Amino acid sequence: MSGEMNRGKLITFEGIDGCGKTTQLRLLAEELTAQGFSVVATREPGGTELGLKIRSALLDGGKGSVEPLAELLLYAADRAHHVRRVVEPALATGQIVLSDRFYDATTVYQGYARGFELSLVNQLNELATGGLKPDLTLLFDLDVETGLSRTHKRGAESVQPDRLDREPLAFHQQVRAAYLDLARQNPQRFRIIPAAGTIETTYALTRREIAQAFSNALLNA
Amino acid sequence: MSGEMNRGKLITFEGIDGCGKTTQLRLLAEELTAQGFSVVATREPGGTELGLKIRSALLDGGKGSVEPLAELLLYAADRAHHVRRVVEPALATGQIVLSDRFYDATTVYQGYARGFELSLVNQLNELATGGLKPDLTLLFDLDVETGLSRTHKRGAESVQPDRLDREPLAFHQQVRAAYLDLARQNPQRFRIIPAAGTIETTYALTRREIAQAFSNALLNA
Repeated sequence: MSGEMNRGKLITFEGIDGCGKTTQLRLLAEELTAQGFSVVATREPGGTELGLKIRSALLDGGKGSVEPLAELLLYAADRAHHVRRVVEPALATGQIVLSDRFYDATTVYQGYARGFELSLVNQLNELATGGLKPDLTLLFDLDVETGLSRTHKRGAESVQPDRLDREPLAFHQQVRAAYLDLARQNPQRFRIIPAAGTIETTYALTRREIAQAFSNALLNA
Repeated sequence: MSGEMNRGKLITFEGIDGCGKTTQLRLLAEELTAQGFSVVATREPGGTELGLKIRSALLDGGKGSVEPLAELLLYAADRAHHVRRVVEPALATGQIVLSDRFYDATTVYQGYARGFELSLVNQLNELATGGLKPDLTLLFDLDVETGLSRTHKRGAESVQPDRLDREPLAFHQQVRAAYLDLARQNPQRFRIIPAAGTIETTYALTRREIAQAFSNALLNA
């Protein structure tokens, strides 16, 4: 028998603000860890020490404080570092990597919503990831009003809602539509999870998708 | 008579660490200001509030703390923001912009010395600058040993010499050779200024090049 380790799996969590992806990621990480899997829970931007600095530069300054092109390049820089320092090493040692956003977020926010040419966005995504693609992408879909009302409740407890939360409604609607479009274009990789229900309802859907996508190798349906 | 303002001039200052470009830039800014010109003295990375955060992310962490590709993209992000927020608005209102490093530094450090393909580096430079080119680039040339001994003296007064100062000698020699190569390829735009002498000697050469390049419109020879 070969001593070679199997390559791990990369599962990415996407959706509009307030869709609950961060909570779902945490629940899945807990269950997989309890099952004995080695799990890396990470995010973009901000999955590394460098990434935290980039994240703070991106989100701190208020709308208009970062040129859109600089923003696009900062996301790419964060991703280049994150993929090489965190994601690839974890996959190489057989771990399950759960990432709160990955390159689809850049395609949707900077491409579809900010209007950068998709050819440029795709080229930067390809450069930053070195061609790495998620094994599975979970898109948590819900209406923008519900999502925003959730982030506003969250914001009431923090000092100030961050930059992206202050975008107009139409922007978030564009983002939602773009995510759905991307999911339709990549049906093998994407699963759309309705996310308007409770945390528990949504998590039941999440774990069912995981079980099915990996033929019960990670979780039993 | 038209009320249109003449477009300003962009002059960039390049060279290895310790070549004296920052001091020369300051002296030139002072003289031009005294002559009545409106001067913007700036630098890359770090010419903006966002750029200062990027600069700190790039230079703080010690060698190997930033993936080379992330580094390349961070320089591009800094430049995209700097060009659009500082350089272009100043040029549009007829000001003289003096920049301590610009895209040639990326070509030299990330392209020639770190080994990224020049086609990629050039493409990112073009993207970040939106095609803007300096009217004049001053290359302060001196041997690497002299440059490093100057930065070490400087370092003794600061807490810690920064990341780039800790590269091996061969790296700095590669950088010097690359700058000279670039200057030979772009003789219209580049002026090579021998920079091993005193501040005063070098400044006499600097102001002569400026006077000649702009036909005595900025300084008299």
